[in-house]
Amino acid sequence: MTSPSLRVIGRLRSCFREKFGTPRQPLLVPGATATLTVAREHLPEHSLSGLDRFSHVWLLSYFHLNTNKMVRPKIHPPRLRGGSIGLFASRSPHRPSPIGLSLARLVRIEGATLHLAGIDLVDETPILDIKPYIPEWDIATGATAGWTKDAPFPSLNVDFSPAAAKDVKAAEKRLRVNGVEKLLRDILTQDLRNPRDRAQNANGLELGFFLHDFETRFVVRDGTATVVRLLTGTVMHKKESRAAHCARQESNLDTRLRRAGHYPLCYERNRRPGA
Amino acid sequence: MTSPSLRVIGRLRSCFREKFGTPRQPLLVPGATATLTVAREHLPEHSLSGLDRFSHVWLLSYFHLNTNKMVRPKIHPPRLRGGSIGLFASRSPHRPSPIGLSLARLVRIEGATLHLAGIDLVDETPILDIKPYIPEWDIATGATAGWTKDAPFPSLNVDFSPAAAKDVKAAEKRLRVNGVEKLLRDILTQDLRNPRDRAQNANGLELGFFLHDFETRFVVRDGTATVVRLLTGTVMHKKESRAAHCARQESNLDTRLRRAGHYPLCYERNRRPGA
Repeated sequence: MTSPSLRVIGRLRSCFREKFGTPRQPLLVPGATATLTVAREHLPEHSLSGLDRFSHVWLLSYFHLNTNKMVRPKIHPPRLRGGSIGLFASRSPHRPSPIGLSLARLVRIEGATLHLAGIDLVDETPILDIKPYIPEWDIATGATAGWTKDAPFPSLNVDFSPAAAKDVKAAEKRLRVNGVEKLLRDILTQDLRNPRDRAQNANGLELGFFLHDFETRFVVRDGTATVVRLLTGTVMHKKESRAAHCARQESNLDTRLRRAGHYPLCYERNRRPGA
Repeated sequence: MTSPSLRVIGRLRSCFREKFGTPRQPLLVPGATATLTVAREHLPEHSLSGLDRFSHVWLLSYFHLNTNKMVRPKIHPPRLRGGSIGLFASRSPHRPSPIGLSLARLVRIEGATLHLAGIDLVDETPILDIKPYIPEWDIATGATAGWTKDAPFPSLNVDFSPAAAKDVKAAEKRLRVNGVEKLLRDILTQDLRNPRDRAQNANGLELGFFLHDFETRFVVRDGTATVVRLLTGTVMHKKESRAAHCARQESNLDTRLRRAGHYPLCYERNRRPGA
């Protein structure tokens, strides 16, 4: 038997340019779009045959932007407002095998390219597998929702400044898409901030995230997220630069290893989380 | 950033001892049971906290018994009776990244051990991840079922010889479980045979598969699978010996690499399927 192996079948091109601003789960933001082009070596003209008759697909992805050196056995999901839960009772990206499982709407297929919506993955995410969503097998009737049942996502009102409302119209014209306002509402209503952001942000500090070709600047005050401007031509600030830097590093690694003909996905040496 | 890495969090102990006889999808056989013990290094006392409130889980597994040297871009699912479909439009185990996605019923958790039902995975399957099934995110309402809609599984009647009926009772007593007859009915009604078996089996050749601690011997004639005997103390025949041999090899590799502190899951050198 040959060594166990995984292969990246393509990298997602998503409207989300960084982790901050990317929805925490799929289908929360129906207007979140992405494309995935299956690499030629996987013969998409054959391997995608028949997929267009499905309305939804599973994407198995590799959480390439994880920067944590260890996996913590308990995590603090935003919905639990400070409470903690075992990592295997969560969908946190910080897991022993950092594989993401995302349900996406399959809008259409053009050649080797899948057009997807309802995406919760950041741009450049390596995709390991596409599987059709088969209701007969993938729906557990009467399933219980565990801790998520009593813990709705923190929800915010979303408002636009007059300048931002103009920016939205300009962006729709420039990008030739509709629904930018709806997209921003769906993203911001989930409250993007982590607990630390929220504490630092008590007095309405301006935050930003990159989407399509613009940066959305917003403030949160008294349960309302107000979009201040959509800026073009800005660069990602320090925190996101780190993520971009990691992506670049990973991408270089990827190139080097691909040149060498393989890409080791190692079972890491056991590290005791929290130790 | 450290190298991408995956880790086996535990190996499934399933009632299915070989690929032949293992259901092709989860939840088809509600009485199919398994246990999964999460390795101590993943601190199950913390990492499983809160999971017991969920009724179902996703298991991400590694298809360790794949013996194919190349991935074919089109596959022939049993439901299509000779027809073919793109591999990404199927749930075939033979994929560029051979990761299985199985929905299982979580019966209970005892310490580090999950008791599962509705399993479609063979004994000793390496499990890479457990995720809670969250209906809110995992159910796509109004999803279309693609080619699977018009292609029901080949279905057989299931019958028991008088000797087999006695063997069932003895097995239930010995194993201290109920429902062995129901389990066998649910397994055999799906028609286990692949097209080659079916052609060779036109005249009612006796076939066998290993389940729990016994071998089920059966024949198929005119749309009815008749269980002839449940045998204990037999050994797997040639075809399954190969699978067992592969498992053993893989297990040795596993041990060697674990001793060396890592387990490379390589992106294989590009191989053009079919070339």
